[in-house]
Amino acid sequence: MTAPQEHPLPDRPGRRHLLRAGTLGVGALGIGAAGAGLDRALRDPARTEAGSSRPDPAPYGGTAVPFHGAHQAGVETPAPAAATLLALDLRENVDRDGVLRMLRLLTDDAARLTQGEPALADTEPELAAEPASLTVTAGFGPGLMARADRPAPEWLAPLPAFGIDQLEEQWCDGDLLLQIAADDPLTVSHAARMLLKDSRAFATIRWSQTGFRRSPGVVRPGSTLRNLFGQLDGTANPAPGSEHFSTVVWRDEGPFAGGTSMVVRRIRMDLDGWDEADRGAREAATGTRLDSGAPLSGGDETTPADFEKVSANGFPVIGEFSHMRRARGVDDGEHQEIYRRPYNYEHAPSPGSGQLSEAGQVFISFQADPVAQFLPIQRRLDELDLLNQWTTPIGSAVFAIPPGCAEGEFLGQSVLE
Amino acid sequence: MTAPQEHPLPDRPGRRHLLRAGTLGVGALGIGAAGAGLDRALRDPARTEAGSSRPDPAPYGGTAVPFHGAHQAGVETPAPAAATLLALDLRENVDRDGVLRMLRLLTDDAARLTQGEPALADTEPELAAEPASLTVTAGFGPGLMARADRPAPEWLAPLPAFGIDQLEEQWCDGDLLLQIAADDPLTVSHAARMLLKDSRAFATIRWSQTGFRRSPGVVRPGSTLRNLFGQLDGTANPAPGSEHFSTVVWRDEGPFAGGTSMVVRRIRMDLDGWDEADRGAREAATGTRLDSGAPLSGGDETTPADFEKVSANGFPVIGEFSHMRRARGVDDGEHQEIYRRPYNYEHAPSPGSGQLSEAGQVFISFQADPVAQFLPIQRRLDELDLLNQWTTPIGSAVFAIPPGCAEGEFLGQSVLE
Ligand code: HEM
Ligand code: HEM
Repeated sequence: MTAPQEHPLPDRPGRRHLLRAGTLGVGALGIGAAGAGLDRALRDPARTEAGSSRPDPAPYGGTAVPFHGAHQAGVETPAPAAATLLALDLRENVDRDGVLRMLRLLTDDAARLTQGEPALADTEPELAAEPASLTVTAGFGPGLMARADRPAPEWLAPLPAFGIDQLEEQWCDGDLLLQIAADDPLTVSHAARMLLKDSRAFATIRWSQTGFRRSPGVVRPGSTLRNLFGQLDGTANPAPGSEHFSTVVWRDEGPFAGGTSMVVRRIRMDLDGWDEADRGAREAATGTRLDSGAPLSGGDETTPADFEKVSANGFPVIGEFSHMRRARGVDDGEHQEIYRRPYNYEHAPSPGSGQLSEAGQVFISFQADPVAQFLPIQRRLDELDLLNQWTTPIGSAVFAIPPGCAEGEFLGQSVLE
Repeated sequence: MTAPQEHPLPDRPGRRHLLRAGTLGVGALGIGAAGAGLDRALRDPARTEAGSSRPDPAPYGGTAVPFHGAHQAGVETPAPAAATLLALDLRENVDRDGVLRMLRLLTDDAARLTQGEPALADTEPELAAEPASLTVTAGFGPGLMARADRPAPEWLAPLPAFGIDQLEEQWCDGDLLLQIAADDPLTVSHAARMLLKDSRAFATIRWSQTGFRRSPGVVRPGSTLRNLFGQLDGTANPAPGSEHFSTVVWRDEGPFAGGTSMVVRRIRMDLDGWDEADRGAREAATGTRLDSGAPLSGGDETTPADFEKVSANGFPVIGEFSHMRRARGVDDGEHQEIYRRPYNYEHAPSPGSGQLSEAGQVFISFQADPVAQFLPIQRRLDELDLLNQWTTPIGSAVFAIPPGCAEGEFLGQSVLE
């Protein structure tokens, strides 16, 4: 845990939080950086100025998520507002030694930046001053494992092709993944640049994807994401901090114990087509209500879905081809779980296309075993899912997320040594 | 003022603020929607829950900026975190009548959306629930004035070409400009889509530019923007809410009285080149310190620059070719002022370019008269400005911003009738 004692910048509003965050971070080491409860406490403006009735006017900038711990941050910790995913390819001349040196540099700077410290060779240290819950999560592709002379786990491989896929090479695969996320886009942009500099001698950019969720303080902390279709997206997720989450997400044996797997799918969403469908068709497509996120069988967002319930004319209220029912495997007698932590993306269309934007979702899921958990779900959705009318996967990648590291270690050390 | 009485969505955390914002808005009408002081009060989390020591956990989502008033919002009101600028071109068959009809539709929906109400034909009303300080500002290009059979003000014309320009057609000009900005990117995205739908029968997209500033609550409200060079950018701006601001920005006679002019320049920033320059060179380029934003002559961000001060070897401390000195016209015996309200932009590079991103600034300035105020500044900077080493204008547009409108009127009504 790098406590931010010697900061070269003048005192500023977030400083107090930063120090407090640093202190709590040390205490949190035992439960790992991913202790979601802790992080939520740090984010709660009411707790940042105990005894004061006037919250700090900048409640989010100084918040630091502990970097070191049993798990990497950026998985179980709350998903912040802005994220950039960088997929890098190792340069041809980089050997095992080079891989380890690169990871050491990246770890060092990630540890600093997440705590509001400038990177070692930071050219814009002012842009490091507000960590805003910055997390940096590293993932390994098969290429990195090979270069580091270590066997890749058998589940670490590109997904098979699906019928719904229209994959574009430019959004697929990669040797090293960096997920850089914070509650502020400038913080993310700066951290991405600094980490990219560390990697430049060793790797080239394969792809980069930037996405957004709600800004901090715009909806209640812990609210489910609203995606660009207007859906509450993430309701059925295992709850961060729970025993159940650990079972679904963290690997419990082998070199990646304490780590997990990450699937990244770039999924184009046809917003124009979606808008043309009527509300009934759109709700039927997932089996959930657009307003409250409740299952069509009734209740509110947290009410368990009743898949047995039928309408007056005898059809299931949550249709057999609906995304929720298919994803859950209700009619297949099987049930897998994953933890979805997606970001919305939207960027300018190609000039002259007449569209407002290219839009979709950077679908990200974490699961202990992608073959046993993610794959059957994706297979079912590929086979049949009403939502497919408006969604098209255009990118795909799988990474192995090593466990967290202790101070003095580098990310992936236990896996690669 | 549309008070949000009948909202089709269930109560949610921001609702209280929304109602309060609506109420205050009515009172504020006298001073115009742009009353920056009012808006700041609305944004201050400490004031939203008077008497409670625990702030609302979602202090920013429900904040509504009054839509109606003497001036349009989005000029003097604080610049929120996320913005999309849409430039539209009128379809060939659209006549004066069509222009007015389109503006009526746009005004109606802008009035609703900014108050947290769904657009009239909103297909995702859930995405309208958190206005998050949404503002919609309309600007007219010469093409719109012509189509509406009204003379364009003589200052409403594309800027002359400058030597530093490398303009790309795809980022220039336009008949109608919509500046859509809010403290949340999803709110912006939704509002942009809804307004675009209103305009679809009348206009096509010429360009769209999306940018960001710090997320709400990450730095103190009212802090100067940090741009992607790490500079504090906006220090010498006239202060919103001041008499001086009104003089610099709002026109005081003619059809556009109560309105202003808007210059939009898309300026590419060479982040890699900037990082290679040493700190001294970078600070000399503007004449300001990178950490505090203070002038190189000393003090802090608010200290007036001393352009007479010379170093031991007799050179001015704020160099003659520095951006600040040139922009201010110190050595030319003239001084113009503008109000700069820019956004950072960064997006994925063209595949295979090896760059992390395409980055820069959506430079936006408001001034009563672009010819008398903006042009001489830009001419001086074109002639000589150290910052030009790293910046390249790639887009350019000028719009006339009509005054605000009262309830029942449409934006630009007084100008076009
Ligand atoms: C753009 C693409 C997608 C959209 C818009 C989307 C949207 C949704 C929505 C609205 C729900 C219901 C609420 C919830 O529990 O989150 C849902 C559930 C779910 N989705 Fe997706 N989804 C997408 C892609 C995927 C993919 C690629 C997978 C995995 C292959 C997936 C797996 C699941 C799972 C496992 C559930 C929970 C089902 C349950 O047990 O209730 N989704 N999705
Ligand atoms: C990417 C391009 C630009 C960057 C990064 C930039 C950056 C800066 C910075 C750091 C300052 C000093 C602090 C401040 O007062 O804001 C400044 C001042 C200023 N800039 Fe720029 N600027 C850019 C483009 C422009 C353009 C296009 C204009 C107008 C043609 C302009 C006009 C001004 C003015 C009027 C000042 C204030 C000078 C004074 O009176 O002190 N800038 N700019």
